[in-house]
Amino acid sequence: MTEERAALPSWRPGQARDEILAFLEASGQIPPEDRLACFDNDGTLWCERPRYIQLEFLLHHLQQRVQTDPALGTTPEFSAVLSGDAAALEQVGLPRIAMALTGLFAGLPADRFKVLVREFMAAAANPALGRPHRSTVYRPMLELVDELRLRGFAIAVVTGGGTEFVRAVSQELYGVDPERVVGTLIEYDFADGEGGPVLTRTNRVSGTLNDGPDKVSHIQAQLGRRPVFAAGNTSGDREMLTWAETADGPSLALLVDHDDEEREFSYPGTGESATPTEPITDVAHRRGWTVASIARDWAEVFP
Amino acid sequence: MTEERAALPSWRPGQARDEILAFLEASGQIPPEDRLACFDNDGTLWCERPRYIQLEFLLHHLQQRVQTDPALGTTPEFSAVLSGDAAALEQVGLPRIAMALTGLFAGLPADRFKVLVREFMAAAANPALGRPHRSTVYRPMLELVDELRLRGFAIAVVTGGGTEFVRAVSQELYGVDPERVVGTLIEYDFADGEGGPVLTRTNRVSGTLNDGPDKVSHIQAQLGRRPVFAAGNTSGDREMLTWAETADGPSLALLVDHDDEEREFSYPGTGESATPTEPITDVAHRRGWTVASIARDWAEVFP
Repeated sequence: MTEERAALPSWRPGQARDEILAFLEASGQIPPEDRLACFDNDGTLWCERPRYIQLEFLLHHLQQRVQTDPALGTTPEFSAVLSGDAAALEQVGLPRIAMALTGLFAGLPADRFKVLVREFMAAAANPALGRPHRSTVYRPMLELVDELRLRGFAIAVVTGGGTEFVRAVSQELYGVDPERVVGTLIEYDFADGEGGPVLTRTNRVSGTLNDGPDKVSHIQAQLGRRPVFAAGNTSGDREMLTWAETADGPSLALLVDHDDEEREFSYPGTGESATPTEPITDVAHRRGWTVASIARDWAEVFP
Repeated sequence: MTEERAALPSWRPGQARDEILAFLEASGQIPPEDRLACFDNDGTLWCERPRYIQLEFLLHHLQQRVQTDPALGTTPEFSAVLSGDAAALEQVGLPRIAMALTGLFAGLPADRFKVLVREFMAAAANPALGRPHRSTVYRPMLELVDELRLRGFAIAVVTGGGTEFVRAVSQELYGVDPERVVGTLIEYDFADGEGGPVLTRTNRVSGTLNDGPDKVSHIQAQLGRRPVFAAGNTSGDREMLTWAETADGPSLALLVDHDDEEREFSYPGTGESATPTEPITDVAHRRGWTVASIARDWAEVFP
């Protein structure tokens, strides 16, 4: 027990840590092939405030492009974004803006997009926290990833964000291979070029956004097994967390509660889920999920 | 070099083995994140004659179901299959028959389908070879899988067959996790049941069959990286093999040529590809792929 407590040094003693340690201890009973742990990304593995990191990336490229092509900034989506006007932003809506921004990369080969993401992540910083985005991953969650991996778990990142955006940095930040990143996927166009097949990004989402019930369906489609552990922080993670919780044998559903205005941010986990539901913290208490309060349970937040 | 030669004991000395050994030796120059090897399944990792193993599985269940429900056998698809009449089979066509047979499992939860596949694979045998299907995997290819894995390659199975069918046995037969099986996927229906989410199989293909150019698109969508090694045996593998061959740095495209009527089967690799193309062995010679002749290059075929 002493050894295991030493294993999660950034977690303060308390109910959340006790429940996690109990699950880690019980995980030996789980058949190896069922040891799959699924982590939401924004707000669960890395910081999502004041804006999604991917949105920062898209805005960065929009600003660059508008400098050489000012007309681009006059579309309703881009002028709303560039003005920062809350009413205009709300009127156009995040989904439409996100798709317009995604379109900036249509026509790029897969490898080129990966390079752009890595260049951005090597340099850009969170404007409110004053630390690089790459250092806004949550240290307690990385410790938990390590402990699960030590016990033979496959670790997957299941994000509402862009699959390829997260894949570009998942190995470096989390040790997660690209095939274990399940997200919102942009379709590729296939062409049989002179030097072999060429895949270029389009501006079309493949299938559906990876949120809510679709997280469950996409996990099955891409990963082919049901998680016995899931972590999330918004209503968009509700079905995934319930799916893990109701698996046979030992299981754990973990909700990160952002309640620490001093060290990070304080906001409810309403998320962008299409289905209005009860507050996710209420769901967690009702179903007996493990709730990690950042203020109470995390001795350290960032690396 | 002596040590490496000892590593592929079922491969006879010759050009195919030399080229494979040269690639294995050069693979140390490939960045670890790019070490992805994609293997077609039917005819590349396991035997596909006289009939696809999955078709045997489907026929087995059709025969069981018809015993309790004889009317089921009167549909055009099923009566053609059950009669074994070549003209009737050709008229209805394999795709329509395969989808009708797939429909036998609509409504099953994912876990139940996995159990059925495993029960079948534990018992059923290849009718021509007189050995269990599980023992019709190709020993030289398993040795190659091991060698690639030793050098840090992620191994993926990229099959025209059913994703979930292959996933049910991929870990046991090949040591491949379900998320690294890319195949033709049947959609699930999602329901929010009393005890948590429930996924049930439908009779609808998700997206497109995994064949030809779609193998390339599906690898990128599911695995998120480009293979530097690919192995296949039919025209349906052409684009995947070309994609691996034309990657930057060391790469290998390997074609298995079924030319051994005595120990296995002899047939051309025309496959079921929708696009009529030049014979795949001609493509291989033209592009300089490595061709593994079963008769010439394999000292042993099966385990």
